[in-house]
Amino acid sequence: MSREQAEAIARTLRDSPLDVGGEAVEQRALFAQLMASRPRPADLVTENIRLGNTPAVRISIGPAEPRRPAVLYFHGGGYAVGTAAETIGLPAQISARNGVTVLSVDYRLAPENPFPAALTDGLDAYQAALATYAPTRLAVAGESAGGGLALATLLAAKQRGLAMPAAAFVMSPWVDLTLSGASIDTKADADPVIHRAALELRAREYAGDQPRTDPLVSPLFGDFDGLPPLLIQAGSHECLLDDAVGLAGRAATDNVAITLDITPGVHHVFQAVATLLDEADAALQRASAFLSQHLSSTADPEATLIG
Amino acid sequence: MSREQAEAIARTLRDSPLDVGGEAVEQRALFAQLMASRPRPADLVTENIRLGNTPAVRISIGPAEPRRPAVLYFHGGGYAVGTAAETIGLPAQISARNGVTVLSVDYRLAPENPFPAALTDGLDAYQAALATYAPTRLAVAGESAGGGLALATLLAAKQRGLAMPAAAFVMSPWVDLTLSGASIDTKADADPVIHRAALELRAREYAGDQPRTDPLVSPLFGDFDGLPPLLIQAGSHECLLDDAVGLAGRAATDNVAITLDITPGVHHVFQAVATLLDEADAALQRASAFLSQHLSSTADPEATLIG
Repeated sequence: MSREQAEAIARTLRDSPLDVGGEAVEQRALFAQLMASRPRPADLVTENIRLGNTPAVRISIGPAEPRRPAVLYFHGGGYAVGTAAETIGLPAQISARNGVTVLSVDYRLAPENPFPAALTDGLDAYQAALATYAPTRLAVAGESAGGGLALATLLAAKQRGLAMPAAAFVMSPWVDLTLSGASIDTKADADPVIHRAALELRAREYAGDQPRTDPLVSPLFGDFDGLPPLLIQAGSHECLLDDAVGLAGRAATDNVAITLDITPGVHHVFQAVATLLDEADAALQRASAFLSQHLSSTADPEATLIG
Repeated sequence: MSREQAEAIARTLRDSPLDVGGEAVEQRALFAQLMASRPRPADLVTENIRLGNTPAVRISIGPAEPRRPAVLYFHGGGYAVGTAAETIGLPAQISARNGVTVLSVDYRLAPENPFPAALTDGLDAYQAALATYAPTRLAVAGESAGGGLALATLLAAKQRGLAMPAAAFVMSPWVDLTLSGASIDTKADADPVIHRAALELRAREYAGDQPRTDPLVSPLFGDFDGLPPLLIQAGSHECLLDDAVGLAGRAATDNVAITLDITPGVHHVFQAVATLLDEADAALQRASAFLSQHLSSTADPEATLIG
């Protein structure tokens, strides 16, 4: 059953008018349409908030509860498409599974706003989250480009001497904008969404004049010493598989607690189709257990609602 | 506390008279002594058995129970030292945590018996295990060289059209006898046990005239398509870290379900000091959960005791 599910979903993605390598402004409406088709859990409550100067969406199941731990979340879209509001489906699935409040950051997009705009926004949001949440009650997460941005935000936060969160969780992270991973070519036929030309365009637009080997552009080249436990999930049918594996190796070398969790036969950010694909539900259950294990459930008596 | 535990254990290992790069026959007694110091669980029951023509030790907590699933186990020792009887401590910890029967294979050792002797024994034992256990009730596991041998056994079994087991679990696996991993040098100071010269000697003795790039010598170069879900654990303070990461990448590329689980600040096969090191207990708990998840607990009404 599950293989049929995965193949049906891959066909839908291949047939989608979305071209992740297309002109950004044109693709944004198509991306929003795809995102709107993602399943959303019941009792979803969202509110537009600001984290520092950066807009964000607060996501909870039922009314947001200040005593619950939080996940600062970075959506995907190649740094060029997607908004926090459009991409609510996946972070809402995370909230539904372990009760965390998700704070999804509306970072600025390329090509209008190249590096370091998104990173500046991520860091601003992270500092604001730290002002409300003790680090033990805060995790950082992201999907695709948002997974890379989540990690770049932590690397930048570390450089500034900020506290690290309790954990980090990334799905199909894009962490190498130099595109050195062999899987970009070896998985080209298997991947229904991503291809080298698309990555090349998005990387050029986002990095702008910044060298793509800068760890704040490509966290794969970063120093992960001191980062919190990191869960990395990816599918074996994706061009960015080697980004996930390489990240695991880099961070493990730097003495970070690593779980690399690869699901065979599934595509980029397959977790987004939870409820339609058994592997997506199973992966999100594992992520939820990981977050629960690391996030302090100790209620802060002085907790206030963020935003 | 845990960092103090890890440092105390690393000091003990550094000060040990055992030299993993020493002359094999001399080192065997020292290795046996180190193994005897490993904690063993209560109510341990062992019996010398044969799996086909290959000697093995059957390990259980309390009397062996034919209806329990089994783990075919390959001990460590660089293909040159160690016996199933001496190395009982770690597989017994696995048995203690989820009730499986462990069948630890007494494969022949180099330099007296170079490749393919150990592999021949492993395959013989695997076939014998399959004659008693349905594949859904059988896992394969191993530590260090035994982790490599466990995987080589599965690759050889696949070539022969044998059924794959339900899962595989390797701790600090040595899968690259060409010694191409950068961590052999970058982790040289951090690793209290393993060093390049030792690996070089043991690889030469074991491989003999066989090219070390042969996947049955170095499973890192194998085709993992069709292998069962694989849990890979290692410590960040070990020369063989890149063997673990590289294996995860290779097998994920071949569409195997992979969990790479890296514990920071701990040494080669740190799980062996369970009860003395918190991280060891935690890692074995995760391994136990993995094995329980994949091994069928359906009792076979016609189950007979192996051996």
